[in-house]
Amino acid sequence: MSDILVVGSLAYDTITTPQSKTERTLGGSANYFSLAASMYSKVRVVGVVGEDYGQEDLKLLHDRNVCTQGLQKKSGKTFHWSGSYKEDMCEATTLATELNVFAHFNPELPPAYKNTPFVFLANIDPELQLQVLNQIENPKFVGSDTMNFWINSKLDALKKVLPRVDVLLINEGESKLLTKKSNAISAAQDILKMGPKAVVIKRGEYGFVLYTHEGFHILPAFPIAEVSDPTGAGDSFAGAFFGFLSKRNQKVDIQSLKQACVQGCLMASFTVESVGVTSLAKLDWAHFEERQNKYQSIIS
Amino acid sequence: MSDILVVGSLAYDTITTPQSKTERTLGGSANYFSLAASMYSKVRVVGVVGEDYGQEDLKLLHDRNVCTQGLQKKSGKTFHWSGSYKEDMCEATTLATELNVFAHFNPELPPAYKNTPFVFLANIDPELQLQVLNQIENPKFVGSDTMNFWINSKLDALKKVLPRVDVLLINEGESKLLTKKSNAISAAQDILKMGPKAVVIKRGEYGFVLYTHEGFHILPAFPIAEVSDPTGAGDSFAGAFFGFLSKRNQKVDIQSLKQACVQGCLMASFTVESVGVTSLAKLDWAHFEERQNKYQSIIS
Repeated sequence: MSDILVVGSLAYDTITTPQSKTERTLGGSANYFSLAASMYSKVRVVGVVGEDYGQEDLKLLHDRNVCTQGLQKKSGKTFHWSGSYKEDMCEATTLATELNVFAHFNPELPPAYKNTPFVFLANIDPELQLQVLNQIENPKFVGSDTMNFWINSKLDALKKVLPRVDVLLINEGESKLLTKKSNAISAAQDILKMGPKAVVIKRGEYGFVLYTHEGFHILPAFPIAEVSDPTGAGDSFAGAFFGFLSKRNQKVDIQSLKQACVQGCLMASFTVESVGVTSLAKLDWAHFEERQNKYQSIIS
Repeated sequence: MSDILVVGSLAYDTITTPQSKTERTLGGSANYFSLAASMYSKVRVVGVVGEDYGQEDLKLLHDRNVCTQGLQKKSGKTFHWSGSYKEDMCEATTLATELNVFAHFNPELPPAYKNTPFVFLANIDPELQLQVLNQIENPKFVGSDTMNFWINSKLDALKKVLPRVDVLLINEGESKLLTKKSNAISAAQDILKMGPKAVVIKRGEYGFVLYTHEGFHILPAFPIAEVSDPTGAGDSFAGAFFGFLSKRNQKVDIQSLKQACVQGCLMASFTVESVGVTSLAKLDWAHFEERQNKYQSIIS
């Protein structure tokens, strides 16, 4: 087992779906990632929260043995995102983004974090992703995520990140935006040319495409008949993906990447069943393994 | 090996994509279906064409040993559809539908057709689908397709068809329209309640959901990096699906349905590589089996 470092957001989200509106529920990529990854390995979080950040929300991470030494507490309020989903529960419409303390986030790694072997750069400003990479010494395996906002506004910085990561995890829509391709397979091929050794295109309810120089795999997601809230599905995917690889702690090859993607799909399937981190926070291995067996029979 | 009867359209299509515009290329559900299914079994076609229908287009079917005794030739022009695809190559926008001889299509089965064991009712007016069903004696396995137009305009007739078929093959979007569900899994569950023993939800590049009372399977499509024209993909899927089951000619269970769906995905992957029936018409088993092996490794 190896440790994982994640840099990302810790947030309060206001989430509107056709079924419900939930005010200021715990969210943020680093939270979803950590709750998922900590089921496998030890996680270290780098991020920033405001004075309003709840003690019980910190406890959620501590209960999972997540190290929060890299978590900065700043005066001001925690990042707040408000989004709304339509009937199809696919893409969120952002209603409000209040960066608050996140606006001046300056990720500084505690000395003990600098040799972390597995590193995930969640969806933050690619300049901050580079700043984290520059502080890491000789990592074993690095992954990153990104989004349309950075593709449109910070493409140069993003293109400096990509050759320095082993894997880019990216939504299908954003993979097409990044490559100007209309098809996930050609998008994946183009992304590999930008430098990462592998790319995972996350397709929501349709699963994933894993593309590497060694070959590729495509598999569906675990089906959920009633999606409550897709927020955090991608970060939960990444958390289980990294958790699996770091727990295994062997040479990463296409086989282990594929297995890691399947873990990612399964983890995401729990996340979307409740609003916010609720399902993820209470998930246990018995339920996970039950679903894993069911998944095998669905795709067998 | 058992024979298959298909009732559907024979058409000339004008297809516009971001890459090309092709005028009056051979199309229609019965053509796509027959070219696919005849790779496995003997196919009988019920349909109608106009005086303009090309001898070479008939020959295409005869060369595949397809029986066209049930094909009516009427005075007037053959059905003509014109559609346009956007960059994402998903759904076509219909630019023109000239029903021509199809407007008064009255499917009458030649006596020799009435005991055909495998029957596919392609996407035509559900009242005509019922008319065909009423002429068939004791079929072994019946499937049907439908579309938004019939769901919106002939729902009562469609609901009379569904309890009489073993399987409904339907696009994902149309499965949601039919059930008013926003999710393929819940749509599939609701469709089973409408009477068919199984439902196959066709998801284009994302593959299929096969849902039965015995259980379900979900698998991705064979990936195609450059889609030339998705027209006929669903009918090619149905053709291979029926071809496989009728060639096997044993009790249809969830295992054989799943295998049939995989054959469907593979066949559709060839269809979309060219405009119209071009790829399908020249397909041979060597290429099919090569792709089948590649598919196994992609999803393994």
